Amino acid sequence: MMQPAAIALGLRLRVLSADPQDCANQVIPDVATGHPSDLEAVLEFARGCDVVTFEHEHVPADVLDALVATGIPVRPGPGALLYAQDKAEMRARLSELGLPCPEWTPVASAADAAALAESTGWPIVLKATRGGYDGRGVWVVDDLAAAERVIDEAAGRGVKLLAEAAVPFVRELSAQVARSPHGQAVAYPVVETVQKEGICREVYAPAPGIEEAHALEAQRIALTIAKELDVTGMLAVELFQTADGRLWINELAMRPHNSGHWTIDGAVTSQFENHLRAVLDLPLGSPAPHAPLAVMANVIGLDLPDLYPAYLHCLARDPGLKIHTYGKAVKPGRKIGHVTVLGEDFEDCAERARHAAAYLRGEIDE
Amino acid sequence: MMQPAAIALGLRLRVLSADPQDCANQVIPDVATGHPSDLEAVLEFARGCDVVTFEHEHVPADVLDALVATGIPVRPGPGALLYAQDKAEMRARLSELGLPCPEWTPVASAADAAALAESTGWPIVLKATRGGYDGRGVWVVDDLAAAERVIDEAAGRGVKLLAEAAVPFVRELSAQVARSPHGQAVAYPVVETVQKEGICREVYAPAPGIEEAHALEAQRIALTIAKELDVTGMLAVELFQTADGRLWINELAMRPHNSGHWTIDGAVTSQFENHLRAVLDLPLGSPAPHAPLAVMANVIGLDLPDLYPAYLHCLARDPGLKIHTYGKAVKPGRKIGHVTVLGEDFEDCAERARHAAAYLRGEIDE
Repeated sequence: MMQPAAIALGLRLRVLSADPQDCANQVIPDVATGHPSDLEAVLEFARGCDVVTFEHEHVPADVLDALVATGIPVRPGPGALLYAQDKAEMRARLSELGLPCPEWTPVASAADAAALAESTGWPIVLKATRGGYDGRGVWVVDDLAAAERVIDEAAGRGVKLLAEAAVPFVRELSAQVARSPHGQAVAYPVVETVQKEGICREVYAPAPGIEEAHALEAQRIALTIAKELDVTGMLAVELFQTADGRLWINELAMRPHNSGHWTIDGAVTSQFENHLRAVLDLPLGSPAPHAPLAVMANVIGLDLPDLYPAYLHCLARDPGLKIHTYGKAVKPGRKIGHVTVLGEDFEDCAERARHAAAYLRGEIDE
Repeated sequence: MMQPAAIALGLRLRVLSADPQDCANQVIPDVATGHPSDLEAVLEFARGCDVVTFEHEHVPADVLDALVATGIPVRPGPGALLYAQDKAEMRARLSELGLPCPEWTPVASAADAAALAESTGWPIVLKATRGGYDGRGVWVVDDLAAAERVIDEAAGRGVKLLAEAAVPFVRELSAQVARSPHGQAVAYPVVETVQKEGICREVYAPAPGIEEAHALEAQRIALTIAKELDVTGMLAVELFQTADGRLWINELAMRPHNSGHWTIDGAVTSQFENHLRAVLDLPLGSPAPHAPLAVMANVIGLDLPDLYPAYLHCLARDPGLKIHTYGKAVKPGRKIGHVTVLGEDFEDCAERARHAAAYLRGEIDE
């Protein structure tokens, strides 16, 4: 999804992809094949690049450091990426900055979890500090016995954990900002995200009914994190909102993020364009939305292997739909595309986006 | 510019380009090199394509016919393309359909031009029936002596001419429609185009102050042409508007057209997306604009060979600009990019788009 923005800006992308079947290879001419943990492959790939950036956070620190040592700008840099890679580092740093995190503790043994629950009550949340994604690596545990099972199992696999209060949130928000090396930043409208089984299903931009003070606070949190952690490129701060309106930081992503896919069709400058502008230290573009409201629904693979008939039906049913398909093989639970609808009426936009996403995955057939 | 639309729709493009340095090669992985008049190259390229379409009209008829004979859908087909390739055929057919063309005549000798001028008065316009582009192949002649010089010179080169009344237009308009093989069509807002030395400089969408009846008439003309000529894909009808508001057909283009570049950033469905949808017989997308007004300014090469510093300046000056650069070497008079601004106030949008286009080409430096 970076390629359309690169084409318009006149930038040439080179991609390192682990698998020649990766969807990036279908749309970008200059592709190198190699795993991001393969130092030689990464250095060979990076030769001649003006800047290296990422679409996920799973590049090992030693590879990042070796890249930096070559003198090629790496944006965001390893010093920032650490906080997107390691949730314990993130919690420690954000707490230090006085930003609103749920009560938390590193977990060396079940006693640490018990001590947290003593203060917060059960349930609590256990998280792998590294490598989680789309709900993987997160366990909500109701009592000490359940916590012990997760902790023992993680110890057996060498996985480090932290424990957090289970925030009694009423909804989840995402605040996205772009920041460039010379410190310019722009903040996108704060959106509401709807997750199901740990996977983002829908995004509403802006978050319906959000009070201006809360939206400004979410943007302030994201801008503060971007600045203090020296983030370059797009930063998404995923937040919990509790019934009293307060905001709690959940996760960070230092890259274009699913909660910003609506910006491709719905904003003057998409998150992909602003990510590219930021990592190249170009001036950033306006994050202003085109319409009062955008609803984005992910198409999550189910059991319909051939999207084409459904795609035809959806295009015919609704000429205002923006359907994006990723060229990925359909697997249950895999994000294979998304749909965006712009408009003014929430119920109308949401019905249209939901219908198309459900139809495309084969959940409904009328 | 077709590639971003193809990526979003999940379509894979294969391009036949005459020169390995063509800008399409920079952004599309699957490129074949060959000239569109090279039958073997075209047939080899087309093997395995679901449909073949065009970004210019200069594919010879025998190549088109051979392509059609292979059974691969060619859209628009040779029967339609003829009217975009040959202005005499176009004038004859549109006159037959009762559509408003300037008075015209084929020119076999200077006597034909003189006979037309007898009826219309001087000046008249002489046009090469084939191969013209961006003002090339068009001569406005003030008297018979001037007409004779053009006619003799054309005869010497074997170029066929027609003669037309010089329409005393007050502005130029363009009406774009997309039409699919099964006959669905959508009409974009009618725009005003501003030419200088035969080259399009600016486009205003919609045409400022256009009366609804005139806009509807322009759309009716374009939809009629698309249907009667069996056009598939995008059709642009370039029109003259005279002081009495009347419309006169100037030229046809059967492809995405410069007058529709504003739709990339300014419409729910860009002309490139609707061209792809149309030639694949997919349902068409909404042509609705995102904003009350869009102004597009072409960046015409002058003597600034390195765009980058100007590009930086323009991005910094105006975060709402959509700058598109084409990856072409800068040559005087060559379209090397365009700029689009969306908004509500004409003077504001026009000033911003004009400033950026002039700065990018090196015409101004502040």
